[in-house]
Amino acid sequence: MKLCRYGAPGHEQPGLIDAEGRLRSLAGHTDLSPDALAPDALATLAAIDAASLPLVEDAPRYGVPVAGTRKFIAIGLNYADHAAESNLPIPEEPVVFNKWVSCLQGPNDPVVIPRDSKKTDWEVELGVVIGTRAEYVEAADALAHVAGYCVINDVSERHWQAERGATWDKGKGFPTFGPVGPWLVTADEVGDPQNLSMWLDVNGKRLQDGSTRTMIFPVAEIIAYCSQFMTLEPGDIITTGTPPGVGLGQKPEPWYLKPGDVVTLGIEKLGEQRQEFIAWAPRG
Amino acid sequence: MKLCRYGAPGHEQPGLIDAEGRLRSLAGHTDLSPDALAPDALATLAAIDAASLPLVEDAPRYGVPVAGTRKFIAIGLNYADHAAESNLPIPEEPVVFNKWVSCLQGPNDPVVIPRDSKKTDWEVELGVVIGTRAEYVEAADALAHVAGYCVINDVSERHWQAERGATWDKGKGFPTFGPVGPWLVTADEVGDPQNLSMWLDVNGKRLQDGSTRTMIFPVAEIIAYCSQFMTLEPGDIITTGTPPGVGLGQKPEPWYLKPGDVVTLGIEKLGEQRQEFIAWAPRG
Repeated sequence: MKLCRYGAPGHEQPGLIDAEGRLRSLAGHTDLSPDALAPDALATLAAIDAASLPLVEDAPRYGVPVAGTRKFIAIGLNYADHAAESNLPIPEEPVVFNKWVSCLQGPNDPVVIPRDSKKTDWEVELGVVIGTRAEYVEAADALAHVAGYCVINDVSERHWQAERGATWDKGKGFPTFGPVGPWLVTADEVGDPQNLSMWLDVNGKRLQDGSTRTMIFPVAEIIAYCSQFMTLEPGDIITTGTPPGVGLGQKPEPWYLKPGDVVTLGIEKLGEQRQEFIAWAPRG
Repeated sequence: MKLCRYGAPGHEQPGLIDAEGRLRSLAGHTDLSPDALAPDALATLAAIDAASLPLVEDAPRYGVPVAGTRKFIAIGLNYADHAAESNLPIPEEPVVFNKWVSCLQGPNDPVVIPRDSKKTDWEVELGVVIGTRAEYVEAADALAHVAGYCVINDVSERHWQAERGATWDKGKGFPTFGPVGPWLVTADEVGDPQNLSMWLDVNGKRLQDGSTRTMIFPVAEIIAYCSQFMTLEPGDIITTGTPPGVGLGQKPEPWYLKPGDVVTLGIEKLGEQRQEFIAWAPRG
C-alpha cells in the first residue's frame, strides 16, 4: 500500500494511492497515527477494496505521511563514497544524530534557507517508519518492526553542522529541513530495502545517483543498533544516510543552495519530492 | 503555581500543589498539553481558587508534569567546574545535544541501568519548559517564552556517550533516562532562574551541590541560541547542564551506579526526585 496524508498543513486527511496511481480518501478508516501503523491495523487497511474508497479529484498538497512522529533519527556517513567526499573516515559503527521533529514537513513544501546561511545542502535518503516498539532487537528480527519506507531530503546546514562545536544536531533541524513523503509505502510492497535506486537533481541537473545497495550499515542493522540505546516507537522515522553528490562534495569546490533553486528527488517505488528553496523571512 | 500530572503511567491526571503543599485535582480545567502552557491558559488556571479544587488524599505517583513533549533538548558542559572534571574545555558556545523523548518518565520512577552498562551516571539539572513558539529570539526577550521550570536528572551512559563515535546522543536517551518533575513551577513563581541552589545525593551521600548561578550560558542565552536553528515549541523541554560532582568526575577515579543505588536530587523552589536504579530485564 501507498499511504499518505493530504490537505492543508495541520488539517491533513488520510489517503491511499490506488493501483492506477489515483488518490483515494481513507477518512474514517485510519488517522495514520502511530497506533495505526501496527501490523493488525495495516492489515485491516489492506483488506479494503480500494475501488470502494472515494476518489480525491483535485491535486492536493501532501503532508508527512505519518501523524504524530516523536523521534526523527538520522544516520550519518552511511555510504562509503559520501564519507570520502565529506573528508571523513568510514565509520566503524553507525553515526547517529537527531533531526529536531519540528522540522518535519510535507514533501513538496518550500524549504526555508536559514537566516544568514551560506551552506544549505541537500541529501536524498531512504526513510524508515517504525511500526512496532523495538528494544534490543537483533538485526535478523529488525525488519519486522518496520511499517514502511519513504523518501526524505535530509536538508543540512553545513556551517551549523560542523563549525559550531560538538554535535551535528545544530545543523540538521532548522524549520522546514525535514521533507518526508509523499507516501508511506508499506514494507510488503517495497520488499528488499537494500536494492532501491535513488536520485536528486538541483535545477534539473542530476547530482546524486545512487542505490541503497551501497549502504555501509543496512536498515536491519541500523534498527538493531539504535534499539540498543533507545526505545524505537511506532511512528518514529529513521533517515538512513545519503549517497555521494551533496553540495559539500562538489568539485572543484563545494556549492550550496540559494533562494529560487528547485530540488527534486526520488527513490524507486517510493515516489518523488520537489522543493523550492526560499529566503528566510520572519513568520508570525 | 506548581502544576503536576499524577496517576498511573499513561493515565496521568492534572493537578496543582496548593500553598499548604497539598495536591489538588485540576481535572476539567487543563490537560497540561503544550497548548495548555500558553500565557492565557496559565492565567486562567491561576485565577482558580485553589480551595475550590478537590483534594487528592492518597500519595500518588507523579508523571512528567507536561503532556506531549516533542523535543527534549540538552545543553552540555554548561558549568565550568563540570567541564573541568570531564577533562573537556569550557565551550565557547553552548553544546547542544538530544535526549530521545522516549526516555521521559516520572520523577520517582525506577531508572533501568542499560544491559551491560558499567558507566551509568547522574546529573542534576534545571529544566526549562517552553510555553510559546520561539524562532530567532534575542536573549532579552527569551524568558517570555518560558512556561516554567522543573527538576531533571539527565541520566547518562558514559560509554555510549563518549566511546561509540560521533554524537553524545547515543548515551543520553536510553529508556527511563529522563526523569522530569515532580512539578512544573511557573516562571512567575520561580523568578530569577539563575539563583537556584541544586543538589544530588547517591545513597544519602551528597555528591552534587551547586547553584544555577554558575552556569556559563544562562537560560535566556540558551533559548536565544537554540532558537537560531530550531523552532522551540510549547511543551519542549530544555535541560540546561549539570554542576560538578557526577560519577565521571569522582576522585581518585570515576565510579558509577549499580542496581539498588538510590539517587535523590532537588532544586530550590522546584521540588525533589528519588530514583532507585535497577538492573535491566526484558519487558514485554
